[in-house]
Amino acid sequence: MRDPLSGGSADLPADALVACAHAMADAARSVILPFFRSASLVTDDKGVGRFDPVTEADRASEAAMRAVLAHLRPDDAILGEEEGAKPGTTGLTWVIDPIDGTRAFMSGTPTWGVLIALCDATGPIYGLIDQPHIGERFEGGFGRAQVAGPRATVALSTRGTAQLTDATLFSTFPEVGTAPERAGFEAVRDRVRLTRYGMDCYAYALVAAGQVDLVIEAGLAAYDICAPIAVIEAAGGIVTDWRGGPVHAGGRALAAANAQIHAAALSVLKHVPDA
Amino acid sequence: MRDPLSGGSADLPADALVACAHAMADAARSVILPFFRSASLVTDDKGVGRFDPVTEADRASEAAMRAVLAHLRPDDAILGEEEGAKPGTTGLTWVIDPIDGTRAFMSGTPTWGVLIALCDATGPIYGLIDQPHIGERFEGGFGRAQVAGPRATVALSTRGTAQLTDATLFSTFPEVGTAPERAGFEAVRDRVRLTRYGMDCYAYALVAAGQVDLVIEAGLAAYDICAPIAVIEAAGGIVTDWRGGPVHAGGRALAAANAQIHAAALSVLKHVPDA
Repeated sequence: MRDPLSGGSADLPADALVACAHAMADAARSVILPFFRSASLVTDDKGVGRFDPVTEADRASEAAMRAVLAHLRPDDAILGEEEGAKPGTTGLTWVIDPIDGTRAFMSGTPTWGVLIALCDATGPIYGLIDQPHIGERFEGGFGRAQVAGPRATVALSTRGTAQLTDATLFSTFPEVGTAPERAGFEAVRDRVRLTRYGMDCYAYALVAAGQVDLVIEAGLAAYDICAPIAVIEAAGGIVTDWRGGPVHAGGRALAAANAQIHAAALSVLKHVPDA
Repeated sequence: MRDPLSGGSADLPADALVACAHAMADAARSVILPFFRSASLVTDDKGVGRFDPVTEADRASEAAMRAVLAHLRPDDAILGEEEGAKPGTTGLTWVIDPIDGTRAFMSGTPTWGVLIALCDATGPIYGLIDQPHIGERFEGGFGRAQVAGPRATVALSTRGTAQLTDATLFSTFPEVGTAPERAGFEAVRDRVRLTRYGMDCYAYALVAAGQVDLVIEAGLAAYDICAPIAVIEAAGGIVTDWRGGPVHAGGRALAAANAQIHAAALSVLKHVPDA
């Protein structure tokens, strides 16, 4: 967990940075949507023996966001899923996932998203989770914590569930990580009230929105988790690794609605040995 | 599988019945949405030792749809999740699920829906799957097969995947039915390319939309499956029980994009013993 006061973000041009993030999300949305549920979807396979499609939409989305940055914030660094790292000179890095939930996207499921985070040396200071098909945009940081939806804009605030037996837990799929990681996840799953799957980044947005108490995942990259960290922290929640330390570089994530439920889940996950 | 020519639906006032279904969906949508993600959500527990919430929204939705029917189609029968069966004199029955996916609804997930089916003595002849939060409405029957979404109305047509090894399979959660039913589901799961969870009625809509090849579930009620049957059949797919017979009365459902992938899945599921 990062101290939100340690980032020195008071000196930053917050409004311009937020406007830049929204411009990036708008650009990504406009290039992705024509591909969604299109029959001409082209994919390839990044993994060996693992189904991990990358679509043309993924590449177009990242290119569109980088074009916005080249125009509005040319000196910031970029870390993107598709094109990797571009160095910068400002101390700020945009960490972007052009389509989070590529399997969801390929299945026509509406809960894939575009993740945009702005990080300084301490970690994420602002994040945006955009849902192009649904028309929802969750954002947190620079004093903001809100979701703009198809009918209204609503403040984000996590909820107060204190006990695992009352908690709702999400993960993207039941086969979480390595065998020890899966056992750790299942030990929490066996203690909570309700476990649901299949939401990708949307699950983190639901923690921020006060609908869900926990998200537990493993094997994450930085671009998977930086935006969720910023949005959830801005809404009052906590996101760490399974030792209670920072997770913005990726790995095993525990997102929690509040300190009590975070501690309860951590007391189970801390027994999972390091990989 | 029902013969679509056997229903005698040519004599029915199709436009009026479709308009009635849309009026019901509009009414349900307007009363449900104020409850969605509201902090004042009230639930109780229908099951013994099982988490199966019914919300105030569920009750309000069914009441709103029954009020529309009382006005527009007072002589039709009704079978609803909340209030049960009301007899009629026309030979037509409206089979309605006021909120399909109550766990999804309680978690803030957008993929819950309202299910409306019109059945004659042969089974469903028209169905509507409404997604109030997303603003999508899938419908099939009386020569229609379409989804009206936030940006466009698109024809529904299932896809041609022939082999399990190329197929995408959905189920609402990994713990499908009884132990033998779960084993049957897992035997299909182990043969397909991709399995996803968590979509409730949205998974059936995605079969109709040509995005997903199979949905396999057990323990369904009539109101869970009648609308999906009509929508998927109108889009070119097949929905049966795990023996290849009709499933509109509920039970174990196999929804498939086409005859080949249906047969492939059925060849696995047929080995599951009767309960």
